[in-house]
Amino acid sequence: MTTRPAGDDAAGDLRGADDKLHEECGVFGIFNAQDAGALTALGLHALQHRGQEATGIVTYDGTHFHTHKGLGLVGDVFGDARVMATLPGRTAVGHNRYATTGDTVIRNVQPLYADFEFGGFAVAHNGNLTNAGTLRRALVRRGCLFQSSTDSEVFVHLIAISLYANVTDRLIDAIKQVQGAYSLVALSDEALIGVRDPLGVRPLVLGRIEAASPGAAPCWVLASESCALDIVNAEFVRDVEPGEIVVIDAEGVHSIKPFGQRRGRFCIFEYVYFARPDSVMDGHSVYETRKRIGAELARESPVDADLVVPVPDSGVPSAMGFAAESGIPFELGIIRNHYVGRTFIEPTDQIRHLGVKLKHSANRAMLEGKRVILVDDSIVRGTTSRKIVEMVRAAGAAEVHMRISSPPTTWSCFYGIDTPERSKLLAANHDVAEMARLIGADSLAFISIDGLYRALGHDGRDADAPVYCDACFTGDYPVDLCDFTLTSTPRVGELAVTR
Amino acid sequence: MTTRPAGDDAAGDLRGADDKLHEECGVFGIFNAQDAGALTALGLHALQHRGQEATGIVTYDGTHFHTHKGLGLVGDVFGDARVMATLPGRTAVGHNRYATTGDTVIRNVQPLYADFEFGGFAVAHNGNLTNAGTLRRALVRRGCLFQSSTDSEVFVHLIAISLYANVTDRLIDAIKQVQGAYSLVALSDEALIGVRDPLGVRPLVLGRIEAASPGAAPCWVLASESCALDIVNAEFVRDVEPGEIVVIDAEGVHSIKPFGQRRGRFCIFEYVYFARPDSVMDGHSVYETRKRIGAELARESPVDADLVVPVPDSGVPSAMGFAAESGIPFELGIIRNHYVGRTFIEPTDQIRHLGVKLKHSANRAMLEGKRVILVDDSIVRGTTSRKIVEMVRAAGAAEVHMRISSPPTTWSCFYGIDTPERSKLLAANHDVAEMARLIGADSLAFISIDGLYRALGHDGRDADAPVYCDACFTGDYPVDLCDFTLTSTPRVGELAVTR
Amino acid sequence: MTTRPAGDDAAGDLRGADDKLHEECGVFGIFNAQDAGALTALGLHALQHRGQEATGIVTYDGTHFHTHKGLGLVGDVFGDARVMATLPGRTAVGHNRYATTGDTVIRNVQPLYADFEFGGFAVAHNGNLTNAGTLRRALVRRGCLFQSSTDSEVFVHLIAISLYANVTDRLIDAIKQVQGAYSLVALSDEALIGVRDPLGVRPLVLGRIEAASPGAAPCWVLASESCALDIVNAEFVRDVEPGEIVVIDAEGVHSIKPFGQRRGRFCIFEYVYFARPDSVMDGHSVYETRKRIGAELARESPVDADLVVPVPDSGVPSAMGFAAESGIPFELGIIRNHYVGRTFIEPTDQIRHLGVKLKHSANRAMLEGKRVILVDDSIVRGTTSRKIVEMVRAAGAAEVHMRISSPPTTWSCFYGIDTPERSKLLAANHDVAEMARLIGADSLAFISIDGLYRALGHDGRDADAPVYCDACFTGDYPVDLCDFTLTSTPRVGELAVTR
Amino acid sequence: MTTRPAGDDAAGDLRGADDKLHEECGVFGIFNAQDAGALTALGLHALQHRGQEATGIVTYDGTHFHTHKGLGLVGDVFGDARVMATLPGRTAVGHNRYATTGDTVIRNVQPLYADFEFGGFAVAHNGNLTNAGTLRRALVRRGCLFQSSTDSEVFVHLIAISLYANVTDRLIDAIKQVQGAYSLVALSDEALIGVRDPLGVRPLVLGRIEAASPGAAPCWVLASESCALDIVNAEFVRDVEPGEIVVIDAEGVHSIKPFGQRRGRFCIFEYVYFARPDSVMDGHSVYETRKRIGAELARESPVDADLVVPVPDSGVPSAMGFAAESGIPFELGIIRNHYVGRTFIEPTDQIRHLGVKLKHSANRAMLEGKRVILVDDSIVRGTTSRKIVEMVRAAGAAEVHMRISSPPTTWSCFYGIDTPERSKLLAANHDVAEMARLIGADSLAFISIDGLYRALGHDGRDADAPVYCDACFTGDYPVDLCDFTLTSTPRVGELAVTR
Repeated sequence: MTTRPAGDDAAGDLRGADDKLHEECGVFGIFNAQDAGALTALGLHALQHRGQEATGIVTYDGTHFHTHKGLGLVGDVFGDARVMATLPGRTAVGHNRYATTGDTVIRNVQPLYADFEFGGFAVAHNGNLTNAGTLRRALVRRGCLFQSSTDSEVFVHLIAISLYANVTDRLIDAIKQVQGAYSLVALSDEALIGVRDPLGVRPLVLGRIEAASPGAAPCWVLASESCALDIVNAEFVRDVEPGEIVVIDAEGVHSIKPFGQRRGRFCIFEYVYFARPDSVMDGHSVYETRKRIGAELARESPVDADLVVPVPDSGVPSAMGFAAESGIPFELGIIRNHYVGRTFIEPTDQIRHLGVKLKHSANRAMLEGKRVILVDDSIVRGTTSRKIVEMVRAAGAAEVHMRISSPPTTWSCFYGIDTPERSKLLAANHDVAEMARLIGADSLAFISIDGLYRALGHDGRDADAPVYCDACFTGDYPVDLCDFTLTSTPRVGELAVTR
Repeated sequence: MTTRPAGDDAAGDLRGADDKLHEECGVFGIFNAQDAGALTALGLHALQHRGQEATGIVTYDGTHFHTHKGLGLVGDVFGDARVMATLPGRTAVGHNRYATTGDTVIRNVQPLYADFEFGGFAVAHNGNLTNAGTLRRALVRRGCLFQSSTDSEVFVHLIAISLYANVTDRLIDAIKQVQGAYSLVALSDEALIGVRDPLGVRPLVLGRIEAASPGAAPCWVLASESCALDIVNAEFVRDVEPGEIVVIDAEGVHSIKPFGQRRGRFCIFEYVYFARPDSVMDGHSVYETRKRIGAELARESPVDADLVVPVPDSGVPSAMGFAAESGIPFELGIIRNHYVGRTFIEPTDQIRHLGVKLKHSANRAMLEGKRVILVDDSIVRGTTSRKIVEMVRAAGAAEVHMRISSPPTTWSCFYGIDTPERSKLLAANHDVAEMARLIGADSLAFISIDGLYRALGHDGRDADAPVYCDACFTGDYPVDLCDFTLTSTPRVGELAVTR
Repeated sequence: MTTRPAGDDAAGDLRGADDKLHEECGVFGIFNAQDAGALTALGLHALQHRGQEATGIVTYDGTHFHTHKGLGLVGDVFGDARVMATLPGRTAVGHNRYATTGDTVIRNVQPLYADFEFGGFAVAHNGNLTNAGTLRRALVRRGCLFQSSTDSEVFVHLIAISLYANVTDRLIDAIKQVQGAYSLVALSDEALIGVRDPLGVRPLVLGRIEAASPGAAPCWVLASESCALDIVNAEFVRDVEPGEIVVIDAEGVHSIKPFGQRRGRFCIFEYVYFARPDSVMDGHSVYETRKRIGAELARESPVDADLVVPVPDSGVPSAMGFAAESGIPFELGIIRNHYVGRTFIEPTDQIRHLGVKLKHSANRAMLEGKRVILVDDSIVRGTTSRKIVEMVRAAGAAEVHMRISSPPTTWSCFYGIDTPERSKLLAANHDVAEMARLIGADSLAFISIDGLYRALGHDGRDADAPVYCDACFTGDYPVDLCDFTLTSTPRVGELAVTR
Repeated sequence: MTTRPAGDDAAGDLRGADDKLHEECGVFGIFNAQDAGALTALGLHALQHRGQEATGIVTYDGTHFHTHKGLGLVGDVFGDARVMATLPGRTAVGHNRYATTGDTVIRNVQPLYADFEFGGFAVAHNGNLTNAGTLRRALVRRGCLFQSSTDSEVFVHLIAISLYANVTDRLIDAIKQVQGAYSLVALSDEALIGVRDPLGVRPLVLGRIEAASPGAAPCWVLASESCALDIVNAEFVRDVEPGEIVVIDAEGVHSIKPFGQRRGRFCIFEYVYFARPDSVMDGHSVYETRKRIGAELARESPVDADLVVPVPDSGVPSAMGFAAESGIPFELGIIRNHYVGRTFIEPTDQIRHLGVKLKHSANRAMLEGKRVILVDDSIVRGTTSRKIVEMVRAAGAAEVHMRISSPPTTWSCFYGIDTPERSKLLAANHDVAEMARLIGADSLAFISIDGLYRALGHDGRDADAPVYCDACFTGDYPVDLCDFTLTSTPRVGELAVTR
């Protein structure tokens, strides 16, 4: 009997258990706002899908920095008025974090804060540095003491030891030494700073709230996704560009491009699964894109059936697109239970196989005797897919055809997404026919990589050079893997240290 | 700054705040199952939508009764293996409870347990007794000491003082004295017992799990809804009938009908909102029924528009029905954030108006410039509707037409649903035109009561005599209100006591 | 590895572990005082030695009763201003409880409260009823439902079902049906009531605080010991007499003696160990009495030695008396560590034997090479004595002579003291010479029962009839044991129930 | 109403409230022991009087370092077997800490741990560095990032940046740069290291446990006091000498004296109050020394009276010495209540004056009508003394003469003891006659500084040069105050930082 959700992977934890890839983090920053702390909590709430395990906010009140961090949802960590009262100030940065484990938990929750010679500094990071281990070893050799096991802390030390006088120059000095994917939001006693790595792998947007009184300075917002601008009634200004540093201070927004003008490789999986459907990324509505992917999938891999059923919630828009394109009715044949607590029961073998039903249940009245097309966004290990198919069959479905709105996931991500190592990826080890058999489906199809590019308005991946990071589908890694190899366990966001 | 979600009703708490009617409880019982406690936890998990604030399980191991209760979700209260290890036995009853307040919290969590002369007895109750106050006063006068302020405890004392020898006879003696709505699941050292009130206002179903070894006795299950049978792989047998007592013991299932054969008045609102879409009630699939209600609504109150948008999650099936019938595209124009913790922040007036967005956000890319039909299940106070309309307009909608899949809620419920008193019900105090203006919609329409009956396969409410309890729409209360009047505050499930 | 303190009795818990007899409870009540709740917390703090595991207070504000209970020390349960703010009113009763276990914990914490027909009623009880099991069975047969497994709850039900109209008459009706030892403090909406059983086995004193303004009514206090009067600056008025009921209301103090004038049998062990040294009981200073017992012991069992060393803290006054009488120097040869938390570590066998040192350590510089007389108050199982002797020898003592300031404890107590069953009492199973050998002492002597009476100013136990309850030394039980036999496990304060 | 104990110093917290000076810390380390973690917990338990607010242990298992820290007593933080199971290994260091406040709490709990280039390193520190602020500023300027606000962390950074290769050389490099009082116990992956500052102001002893099997290597122990050796059955070997570094590794104990042979200035107040009476320091039994101080005090300041009464617990041995020398009977006229929780109630002014009685109560039967000599160890602010005198008078004492077993405390300590700033010290601002009047005593006398030296076997302070640090009595500060001035607030162990 364990407190882990069901899964046939004995070592599976909450991450593995639902057999999804997971974004590691969401970041948010705000400059010149009354209640900056509370607005940051709202922004982090809107970014909750990017990390539910831990959250933190650092505010600056013009004299002191204030920090509060905790494990759990934003609403639980920051829902108490007494907590919010400890976070005064008009600027703030915040961070949501996906699972972190063991006794490192509290020390690893971001934003990281440091007392520099020139004052306090807080930083929140979404992404993963591929040379963090090497940098850390060099810094420790120099006498730097690390408080956490996060890759993000190397930024802080690189800034601390930089010989430049100015905090922005120190930051540039730091990012020139790191490799990897990083969207940063940082806070000094003078400015709010946003940074996106040279290829812009992870997202970062800039927003603005007009001042209530005419002539007063506006409030500026930085966030991982545009949905976090909406919740604080901020207007979307633009995406921060690949390799760009935006420095927001009393005089406004300054743009610095230490790497020159770059063509980015934005993470294509954000469209498929990570981002919230009401976000707009790089000019594309995530919701519309998913519907287009579904339609493309219907064109590429049609099948004769009675119903199109999404695996909720993420499969809904692509199922709608599939249904509309194919003319087969869209039905909610699987119901999602949203009240799953953080832990659940699995006392005996008899009960273990009931596990997957904690989140999903079959709408038997709808499925009985029907030929069903299930639409899901991805297959990682395949454990969940197998159980979903089994559940739909047990509810009486005559046929079960699985359609996946991403290409086969055949490579690990080392840029900030929690993926299993390659040997655990179903698609890296089996062809599609075998996969269909393993998950028990009557047929299985994935969208092609070109189809995915088409849904995003291109003629195909190689029509012109790739414009997205699609390494998890293609193995074409645009950023040097440095400390990692293709078969590394993609330990993301945390380094192995001696304790 | 408070820890309550936003709402313009200063006294609003979590219940009022989301401006929905709420089921008070879910019940579950199981007889002759290995891991009865764990299966009960799973069943309660499937019934989590019927009460999220508190939960409890009592098991019987053949010698002792074991109890564990707690505040919070089933997965949190029963997710620890060490907790489950304290609940051995092959029979169990469990209960989910909607909000209870103040220092009465722990004492009021069900199942209630008592040491009777003939042994231990545990009972879980969904519903509300209308003469509980009168009965309690009489029992106290006799020397009975109450532990809780629940109406349900009068059952326990009536059974304790009954002059009948047998527990079933004592139970019949008790239910003959009470008025109201009650679906009970009770556990003695001999039997699992299910009871439904004479009109069958609240639901209760019977299920069965065949024994693994041939010839062995099957396991029996009682539950508020069929979705709780599915999660434990139990086969649906039948609804418990209005006024029926089912006694399940080593010899099987015995049916007793102390009130004779009765025609019931099942709560029609279970179809509209309370029940889970994958449940089947009285032979009707809840999901299909909701789609039919949406279609009926489209026929009754059509409107020219570009999109049909559900208020998620409950409005989705009726919006699908509306869209299919009207031919207008169904789109997810509102995104639901499921990560709302139990409390949230509202530090200042500036931020208060952002409140409703904690649960819902507008999919701006989809709504901009469109004529939108919003489909929701009900309007109670109207506070949420007003904010949803406002949010959709702020996202750029050209027109907003609201369609409601229930008739106007004009009367309080005294049968186990948490409703505001009449003076707070928007529809009890305004006509539809005024309501449209108050919530800011370009048009507003409710399904008619006859339309609702039609969606359930009848020719209309009065075609033959009403077969549902629809008092909240009609004021036709089928069970005597006893201690209440039509303008009472429907304090449900708890009595006012001296502490 | 366990969280229990060391002990060679595997089943030993915190009680057995320190191998002392333990008082079960302390009670306190106050009438007509501003801040009655806070003064009650102070009074309970002064009575903390009578029970450290749980505590509760019920106040009455003229309209409502208010309750707060918790596990732990008075200062921890009532140390929060927000808690005290929930306990308004000018009358209050409170209770300290010695260990209670398992899931009965919260329900068993006193004062017990009930809603009677005539209003609220709270009662706190020190002692033990010997016919509680019989009474409980009869009450349950009648339909009474018990909330707790305490013997004290029978009082509440007997009062609830009494046919008398008046609460005092109902209380008299109740106490005429019970057997055992009971000092009660009760609170109705009209009066504070104190009751002492017919033999006055357990203590109860009456105190008074003069009103600040002349002519105003005084405040009255009831407490287990006079030290609780001192802490609230109340003047000692008198002991409540055996079999007396004192009813304190707006008109003053009324005395009722339903059993007529009785000669009591006050617990002699209160002088030896239970009571706080600064209390005065029945006219005797506890501190002075203990010094006289030590002197008497020195006369009865002298020994040639270099030092008299008390086992702290309880052995200090008798060791002082022994030293003064014998002329041998008194020295603190054993140091007590007062910072022992509620649990402690014992990971391995290697460490287990270090256990007893958590509370006591030898003052090696003082003991080395010396002939030592250890003075302690009692030997129960003998486990602690053996370890103390061993520790003193390990510190270099040349000889160790043990002197005990009570007669051998040879019988269990059924009147409210936590004692092991007879078979576990060292003195019930071994003669003094064997006991000396078992604990490893060079000599061992107990004070005689006549010596103990002499220290209290009598000529000896049988010079005139016994005036104390000394059953634990003599087996002469003055109150009928009813449900118990001489070899019963003296389950005190809690009954065995079906859960 | 506050949760602070009574005190007329509005800013007084738990420290000020009991009006004692307080040791800041206790340290313990062990090398080559099975269950090193558990033995360290026991050692810390014996040192609990040196710090009750927080505690931590770091163990090393040959490969990894393991840490557990918490707020509260050792028994509460380490009493759970599951916690101890996370602390494997044969070497360990531990620390008890006196109060630390605010959000710095967890980060400031020691031992501090760091990942150095050469491996993990943990350090526990008792004392205070007087140039920590200056050093910290220089280190931050260099790019070092501090995790805590403790002065102790400068050790860690100085070691990290040292250019020496070897950890011992780095440590020597570090201590040559610091000023102040420091007894350190540190753990690397090769050795357990103890360090005492050049004047040996704070204590540190070395002990040994012989191996169970002949020929095996012994286990070595370092601890603040010898009482912590006793609890683990370790034999006292010797005091670590002023300015000595002891390095304990697989080859045994190595002594290094980087400052050469030094004559120390050990803290004389350890004898008066801080140390546990069963400890032996610098060859003196603390208990015997206190008795000799009491005798010396009786010779210097005799008074005709009926009783000598200690203020418990610390005043007991000196009162015994005073009584023996004067021939006046020693009596426990004040009872100490050891059950004071961490917080307590003080709801109103009426109750506030009862505050001091939470810890002490008068034994009225003993004091009434008597001329009483109270013996206490020190007067800091005078608040407690005044209340004790008042309480003894209220209990009926005819005369109250106060005798103090230390000279007047006229200067703040900057070497690791929590003292108020000078302006708050009663003796720094009033002569003895005024002080007697302010505390309400009939007479008051302190032992002279020469008398104190005599009690320690010297002819007087200046007979030969002072051999103790007695700065709090004389203002003769043997270590440079550096960042502090004589009127500084002696913020001990924590630095003021920007958050």
